[in-house]
Amino acid sequence: MKVIIVGGVAGGASCAARLRRLDEDAEIVMVEKGPYVSFANCGLPYHVGDVIERESDLLVASERLFREHFRVDCRTGCEAVRVDPVAKTVDLRDVGTGDVTTESYDKLVLAPGARSIRPPIPGIDLRGIFQVRTVPDAREIREWIERGTSFLAGMEKYSGFQTVRPKMHAVVVGGGFIGLEMAENLVARGFDVTVLELADQVLTPLDLEYGNLVRNFLELHGVHVVVGDGVARFERNDEGEALTVTTQSGRTFPADLAILSLGVRPETELAQQAGLEIGERGGIRVDEHMRTSDPDIFAVGDAVEVRDFVTGEWSLIALAGPANRQARIAADVIAGRDSAFRGTQGTSIVGLFGDAIAWTGASEKTLQRLGDTDYEKIYLYPNSHAGYYPGARPIAMKLIFRKSDGRVLGAQAAGEDGVDKRISHIALAIQLGATVFDLEQAELCYSPPYGSAKDPINFAGMVAADVLRGDLPLSHWESIDGGFVLDVREMPELAVESVPGAVNIPLGQLRDRLHEVPRDRAVHVVCRSGQRAYTAARLLRQRGIDAHVVSGGMLSRAIVSMK
Amino acid sequence: MKVIIVGGVAGGASCAARLRRLDEDAEIVMVEKGPYVSFANCGLPYHVGDVIERESDLLVASERLFREHFRVDCRTGCEAVRVDPVAKTVDLRDVGTGDVTTESYDKLVLAPGARSIRPPIPGIDLRGIFQVRTVPDAREIREWIERGTSFLAGMEKYSGFQTVRPKMHAVVVGGGFIGLEMAENLVARGFDVTVLELADQVLTPLDLEYGNLVRNFLELHGVHVVVGDGVARFERNDEGEALTVTTQSGRTFPADLAILSLGVRPETELAQQAGLEIGERGGIRVDEHMRTSDPDIFAVGDAVEVRDFVTGEWSLIALAGPANRQARIAADVIAGRDSAFRGTQGTSIVGLFGDAIAWTGASEKTLQRLGDTDYEKIYLYPNSHAGYYPGARPIAMKLIFRKSDGRVLGAQAAGEDGVDKRISHIALAIQLGATVFDLEQAELCYSPPYGSAKDPINFAGMVAADVLRGDLPLSHWESIDGGFVLDVREMPELAVESVPGAVNIPLGQLRDRLHEVPRDRAVHVVCRSGQRAYTAARLLRQRGIDAHVVSGGMLSRAIVSMK
Ligand SMILES: Cc1cc2nc3c(=O)[nH]c(=O)nc-3n(C[C@H](O)[C@H](O)[C@H](O)COP(=O)(O)OP(=O)(O)OC[C@H]3O[C@@H](n4cnc5c(N)ncnc54)[C@H](O)[C@@H]3O)c2cc1C
Ligand SMILES: Cc1cc2nc3c(=O)[nH]c(=O)nc-3n(C[C@H](O)[C@H](O)[C@H](O)COP(=O)(O)OP(=O)(O)OC[C@H]3O[C@@H](n4cnc5c(N)ncnc54)[C@H](O)[C@@H]3O)c2cc1C
Ligand SMILES: CC(C)(COP(=O)(O)OP(=O)(O)OC[C@H]1O[C@@H](n2cnc3c(N)ncnc32)[C@H](O)[C@@H]1OP(=O)(O)O)[C@@H](O)C(=O)NCCC(=O)NCCS
Ligand SMILES: CC(C)(COP(=O)(O)OP(=O)(O)OC[C@H]1O[C@@H](n2cnc3c(N)ncnc32)[C@H](O)[C@@H]1OP(=O)(O)O)[C@@H](O)C(=O)NCCC(=O)NCCS
Repeated sequence: MKVIIVGGVAGGASCAARLRRLDEDAEIVMVEKGPYVSFANCGLPYHVGDVIERESDLLVASERLFREHFRVDCRTGCEAVRVDPVAKTVDLRDVGTGDVTTESYDKLVLAPGARSIRPPIPGIDLRGIFQVRTVPDAREIREWIERGTSFLAGMEKYSGFQTVRPKMHAVVVGGGFIGLEMAENLVARGFDVTVLELADQVLTPLDLEYGNLVRNFLELHGVHVVVGDGVARFERNDEGEALTVTTQSGRTFPADLAILSLGVRPETELAQQAGLEIGERGGIRVDEHMRTSDPDIFAVGDAVEVRDFVTGEWSLIALAGPANRQARIAADVIAGRDSAFRGTQGTSIVGLFGDAIAWTGASEKTLQRLGDTDYEKIYLYPNSHAGYYPGARPIAMKLIFRKSDGRVLGAQAAGEDGVDKRISHIALAIQLGATVFDLEQAELCYSPPYGSAKDPINFAGMVAADVLRGDLPLSHWESIDGGFVLDVREMPELAVESVPGAVNIPLGQLRDRLHEVPRDRAVHVVCRSGQRAYTAARLLRQRGIDAHVVSGGMLSRAIVSMK
Repeated sequence: MKVIIVGGVAGGASCAARLRRLDEDAEIVMVEKGPYVSFANCGLPYHVGDVIERESDLLVASERLFREHFRVDCRTGCEAVRVDPVAKTVDLRDVGTGDVTTESYDKLVLAPGARSIRPPIPGIDLRGIFQVRTVPDAREIREWIERGTSFLAGMEKYSGFQTVRPKMHAVVVGGGFIGLEMAENLVARGFDVTVLELADQVLTPLDLEYGNLVRNFLELHGVHVVVGDGVARFERNDEGEALTVTTQSGRTFPADLAILSLGVRPETELAQQAGLEIGERGGIRVDEHMRTSDPDIFAVGDAVEVRDFVTGEWSLIALAGPANRQARIAADVIAGRDSAFRGTQGTSIVGLFGDAIAWTGASEKTLQRLGDTDYEKIYLYPNSHAGYYPGARPIAMKLIFRKSDGRVLGAQAAGEDGVDKRISHIALAIQLGATVFDLEQAELCYSPPYGSAKDPINFAGMVAADVLRGDLPLSHWESIDGGFVLDVREMPELAVESVPGAVNIPLGQLRDRLHEVPRDRAVHVVCRSGQRAYTAARLLRQRGIDAHVVSGGMLSRAIVSMK
């Protein structure tokens, strides 16, 4: 059996390695048009930021390793340019010489990844504008930065001559996770960074309020973020000068360096040319065995559409974990096994200036788009570990679950500590079909530096379960306008911020001042995070008052009201 | 309804708070014989170590909060001394005055916790020997330390008089998690610490090789650890001098301070006196609703026996998470709800000198004790996050799973980074009935600082699944004696350590040197962690050789051979 694999990085390389382990006799040819196989795409922003200092650290496995350990005929600088699915051949072009040879296959695996979206914006080809997909891309950016800064650094050598090094400007076009990672790393390299995003928020998989939370956080760290405004053109007057980036609304930004990270589009050229079915979202259509519409051609990774595990929709998920797993499944199937991909939850995380933002499963806006109303959401702010042990940090969490059966649907979280852990827990819970009642009873590691006797996951489960059992009728900030707001915080807390028109009765006085709370209408109870409000609401309801807990309290108000 | 709750910390306080939320009208009396309710037992070692500096930080909730927020009649310094289950009364003794009053109840909740085991060792009551269960215990230890050190510190004030401050010695009796946390914190306070443990390992819930790993790690950090030797007596010749601790084997250790942490025993005095059923392990017997043999008396926390979630055995688990959850369930049931405790997995974690050791579910030795042979184990050493991003650390992991159906049974792990996350994932997986095939397809947060495209959890699942699918026949170090050992590492690696008698053929040369591998007997393939050995074994097996992968490779050998 001869297998040709197109693409030699996450999907291609994983498929080749697994296939060799399963079939020592297969002839495996892996072609990669770029200069490297098996490199760490995900590390590129950190190499630009000099966090990963050596380029060689990005090379996870070498051509030589593929030859020696896996006996894979591994060819870099070799591009697949045409597939003939009837003759079962691929035309391969030597990138260096341009020579094209034709190679036959029994099975073909397409793992060509995705390409950066490059809209036809005037000036997009000017020098100083980069994308970040390959090792050479990162190298070019580093060289550009170092050229720029070494010139200025030289000036410091003139003794007695003091110079204020002018701040360099960078514009990052696109507020997806790669754009934001680049923004952070460019700040680390001393740039004044502006992120331009056409959508009304950064990190569009997040719900708007979490997108706003991230945007505000970036701004706190000195990154300028512009949303709802796309790039209209790039201009450069003179070689020595910075670019000028002009937005659709007419704002202009100087840019010594610009990064294009407008997202990616599945690389489907070969697949289309071969007549393979392309899905509704523009990715190669595959079944759960990663088989395309041609039974001898498989496709994996960023190039394909996969089922969303929660919603069942076709979706495009350009992430390394799914790519690696899909590749392993394709290899299994080619080797005659029955493996199947279970779909993806889109579990993601972005580290930014020491904080992490992560999400998994369905967002509220996805459910709204699907017209799904059988869900509820809660906001909470538990500590990352026991509050009495130094270093505990609040985690802002949003949990989305089915109203009818308690199934966990999705979550979003942000914070300095323990975010990856909690969103990964929820990802696992979603995969395993868990309900909020399961989270309520989860038994996770606890000692003071690592968690709490009630872990944030337990809290999320408890609060959600309380909601479903009818013990904790919820209000959300967006829907209490004009209602009666009862603030049960203590006086000093009110000074920080309070809700105009709210009546304040601290929880400890509530039982004695019940007569001050109206009985003829809904009462929305507020505290800092919702916890005291819940205790208050419990007692009010048992005294005949229609009390609701405003989910997430003042902490959520701060997020929800961010513009 | 009048409810009396005995014990005002993890179980008692949680029960009181939840009960009030569910029932505004109940009369709730919570009695605590000590001076504080709701304190952080788990923080005590860190308060001794001055990591948690202020005693007040240990007080999670105050009596006042219980009165004001929860309208709980909260009485400290009040001991329940007798229960009359027929009259439904409790005798309460004022610890200050000795006065006893009798109080009636409709429902009684026992949350008295556990008491430190204090065997009748000669000298056990001498000054300078402490236990660590309460805030006053921690305060006494701190004062003892500070008295000792302030005397010496004073000497430094004499100008021109240089003194080498003599090292103070501490002996920790008992190598359970509290003992080890105390050892770490006493090292932080400048002590030379010796841990004495009667069993043949520290942290007895772990399997022996992990116990040894921890012991060696402690020794690397300067803690002397003695196993298989108990304390015979404590002696003190003179007030000024240190204690002498003599072991059963006759060894002696000086101790300016000794900590007794020989484990705990359920506090069952009241329950026994009341005629409640006591279980086989010595804890109060309760059903899944936390009801004792008397339908109006509930018991929770360290005082009760609970079902082990994996083995179904009755067990004693003195941990805060289960105590809190059981208490919440007891409150639910008292308030007329149907909540049930699902049992415990014993999920635990200990932080030691920057590393963490954690475990969940069944250990191998528990399965062996039960005569259960339907299990397999794997050892692996994945990186805590992407290896190319700075700060990645290996995690030593042992995963135990059902041979027949792949169900995850238990895990143990140790390392500097990400251990809590992975053991908590596995705890959740066990709770949800997951198999290793589920772990294989888990989709966890990945970006370089936070994980890997294949997370340690995926690796564990993949390796275990490979084993179950018959692709990866395993060997374990304890069972390859005399077999043919093939080492596929590279030459420089052999210099570090190698297996006597092993034949070395680096993986890259194996295909060309197949004739050097015997075909008439089992071949045990070894590399650093097992990964290359697996690739080697795959190719050997497809060439007719009975190859087995030595699980965990040389890294496991180092652990397994620790004495
Ligand atoms: C900067 C950056 C940061 C990222 N960070 C993360 C992260 O933190 N977490 C995460 O999960 N994911 C991250 N990703 C996404 C992740 O890298 C991809 O999802 C994953 O690499 C996709 O694997 P793939 O095999 O489908 O495509 P790729 O890994 O992109 O590999 C495709 C390869 O195919 C080659 N190719 C294409 N067409 C041809 C052809 N015709 N002939 C020969 N070769 C061809 C390309 O040159 C390319 O090298 C990041 C990506 C980038 C670019
Ligand atoms: C030093 C230390 C460190 C720990 N670290 C951890 C950790 O990291 N992780 C973890 O999960 N667990 C840890 N634990 C265990 C955890 O604290 C216990 O499992 C938990 O507190 C048990 O709750 P409980 O309510 O059953 O008992 P406790 O919290 O001990 O409360 C029982 C209370 O009842 C009172 N009492 C007893 N009898 C009477 C009576 N007759 N009348 C009135 N009052 C009475 C006692 O004074 C006591 O205050 C640690 C414990 C200690 C001591
Ligand atoms: C590294 C790479 C070539 C894949 O090679 P691979 O051998 O399939 O993958 P890994 O090195 O992760 O090893 C996984 C294999 O080793 C096995 N393994 C891991 N630890 C093991 C252990 N301790 N004992 C035995 N086997 C082990 C796994 O079971 C798995 O084998 P399987 O798939 O047959 O079950 C490919 O993932 C790659 O190119 N990665 C870099 C590119 C990339 O992913 N980019 C995006 C992220 S930055
Ligand atoms: C603190 C203590 C008194 C318990 O009080 P509690 O009110 O039950 O517990 P918490 O403060 O953890 O709060 C949990 C409650 O708040 C609710 N809650 C938490 N966050 C919320 C939010 N954002 N919005 C609404 N409700 C919230 C939870 O659902 C839960 O209520 P429920 O049990 O009715 O579902 C008790 O746990 C205690 O004494 N702890 C210290 C002792 C101890 O545990 N020692 C061992 C560990 S060191």
